[in-house]
Amino acid sequence: MKKYCFGVDVGGTTIKIGFFKTDGTLLDKWEIKTNTENFGEGILGDICEALESKLVKEGIGLDELEGIGIGLPGPVLDDGTVLQCVNLGWGTFNVEEKLSAMFHDIKVKAGNDANVAALGENWKGGGKNYHDIVMITLGTGVGGGVIINNKILTGYNGGAGEIGHMHMNDEETELCGCGRKGCLEQYASATGVVRLAKRYMAQNNEPTKMKDFGEDITAKDVFDLAKEGDAGAEAVVNQMGNYLGKAMSHIAVTVNPQAFIIGGGVSKAGQYLIDAIKVIYRETCFSACGDAAVHLAELGNDAGMYGAAALVVKY
Amino acid sequence: MKKYCFGVDVGGTTIKIGFFKTDGTLLDKWEIKTNTENFGEGILGDICEALESKLVKEGIGLDELEGIGIGLPGPVLDDGTVLQCVNLGWGTFNVEEKLSAMFHDIKVKAGNDANVAALGENWKGGGKNYHDIVMITLGTGVGGGVIINNKILTGYNGGAGEIGHMHMNDEETELCGCGRKGCLEQYASATGVVRLAKRYMAQNNEPTKMKDFGEDITAKDVFDLAKEGDAGAEAVVNQMGNYLGKAMSHIAVTVNPQAFIIGGGVSKAGQYLIDAIKVIYRETCFSACGDAAVHLAELGNDAGMYGAAALVVKY
Repeated sequence: MKKYCFGVDVGGTTIKIGFFKTDGTLLDKWEIKTNTENFGEGILGDICEALESKLVKEGIGLDELEGIGIGLPGPVLDDGTVLQCVNLGWGTFNVEEKLSAMFHDIKVKAGNDANVAALGENWKGGGKNYHDIVMITLGTGVGGGVIINNKILTGYNGGAGEIGHMHMNDEETELCGCGRKGCLEQYASATGVVRLAKRYMAQNNEPTKMKDFGEDITAKDVFDLAKEGDAGAEAVVNQMGNYLGKAMSHIAVTVNPQAFIIGGGVSKAGQYLIDAIKVIYRETCFSACGDAAVHLAELGNDAGMYGAAALVVKY
Repeated sequence: MKKYCFGVDVGGTTIKIGFFKTDGTLLDKWEIKTNTENFGEGILGDICEALESKLVKEGIGLDELEGIGIGLPGPVLDDGTVLQCVNLGWGTFNVEEKLSAMFHDIKVKAGNDANVAALGENWKGGGKNYHDIVMITLGTGVGGGVIINNKILTGYNGGAGEIGHMHMNDEETELCGCGRKGCLEQYASATGVVRLAKRYMAQNNEPTKMKDFGEDITAKDVFDLAKEGDAGAEAVVNQMGNYLGKAMSHIAVTVNPQAFIIGGGVSKAGQYLIDAIKVIYRETCFSACGDAAVHLAELGNDAGMYGAAALVVKY
């Protein structure tokens, strides 16, 4: 194993780049803009330029570079084929081969961003003491990644860990972004918690401080109020925890992980959130699979960079 | 790879033994009784005796035997440790090491029976054209096995694929055998279908031929009547398909298999059953994971033997 590697986390707006030692030490990190013009044709070139500059600046030769890991916002197959990255404007091609050809034929490993974040938490974050984890990222949407024996479970067409779209509610009337109704994401994401809060306020006359926030209420407001004992906010958190805890029990009887790692913006609610979901998970799950640890993620927005670097080191 | 192997499928009542070529050709099969007396202490000895006799009879030497695969009715870890086989009276020990020590130090590989049946269908049955499958066995209970890259996904404590105990219904009032309420097994097993049928008859006054069978109605009766167009029986099949199809969509967004293979006694209902569950699975599942094929199992009660033999060949 050579001494250095890059971990690159490509999002629709920014590209996060981490310069790592292959032992997992983050030496430097920075961001560049994601240029999605002309179907994102400049993205890989921009990345190459950024990495090249860094190597020159640090005086590090290619013979000291193990490779480049890259996380992408779309399905990525085990052979490095991206099926579509709508947010980048990309179609279907082998990103590993292409980036390698553009950057001195160096080793390149690619993965889906949610899966790669899970690998990062497994390598150096909240899941580092486990070999089988499921990471659940509660952000604007709900993402997931399944790690078995310290490697990503990709699935047949890159769809493993797409747990944000687990169908949790037959009664839902509003559409999820995916076109279905009743997806986990509609209840457990930041926007989902806000939806539940607004629904609660519309359907209940009991006093709740949530009403002081009106239309601008955020998931953080809901959790803050719940922690203060506001009954309405507690009810909303319980609803959210109910959906998420049950989804975790579905996942657990399927892949039986050692630990769930909860990340994303909503997870800033901390141990209070963990306790809310753990109760339902343990209550509804078959006992043999119901004892997985439930931890907060630890790497925040850097999880994708870490995981991308881990792709190089572990694969 | 040597020429022959044994696949042994240990149940609580009988032990099925298959004598295979390592290319998957079944040469002979027979059964012996499972002696559960004294905590099942005689079981491994009985198996050794049966295998030894067979080798002698066929004039085959140990140098031609690749090994013994064994499927067991309880959790089995990747290292061959059985955690508990309640139906056999067994506690926790390494069955691979023990059986190998008892049988000429030959290679032994062990797995959970439901997982091993899935491996068998993947090797030579309904899943032979796929590398990532989930098998669902609809028998007295509901068992499951997850196969990724043609190998068993075991899970942290042997609980992967325990989908019979996926929590599907908050409103259930009766207990499942596992101690929880609302498990998939309570609706999709042979006994589950009978429960749904009896419930339907107790709650509906519309005429249905199911009533002619009274208390003795079987899952087969329900499917036969549904195929004839009996509205009550159709309603029961739809309920069952609703639970099972949704469970499949939960599984699909978690591990994203290429195919589901449906086996067990209830699967004798054939394509009619497949159609009933496929509709709901496709309707509720995130589109990227909703296109897995759904096939009937092909090996029947021999799946466990085939899978046990596959353990020797593939591991």
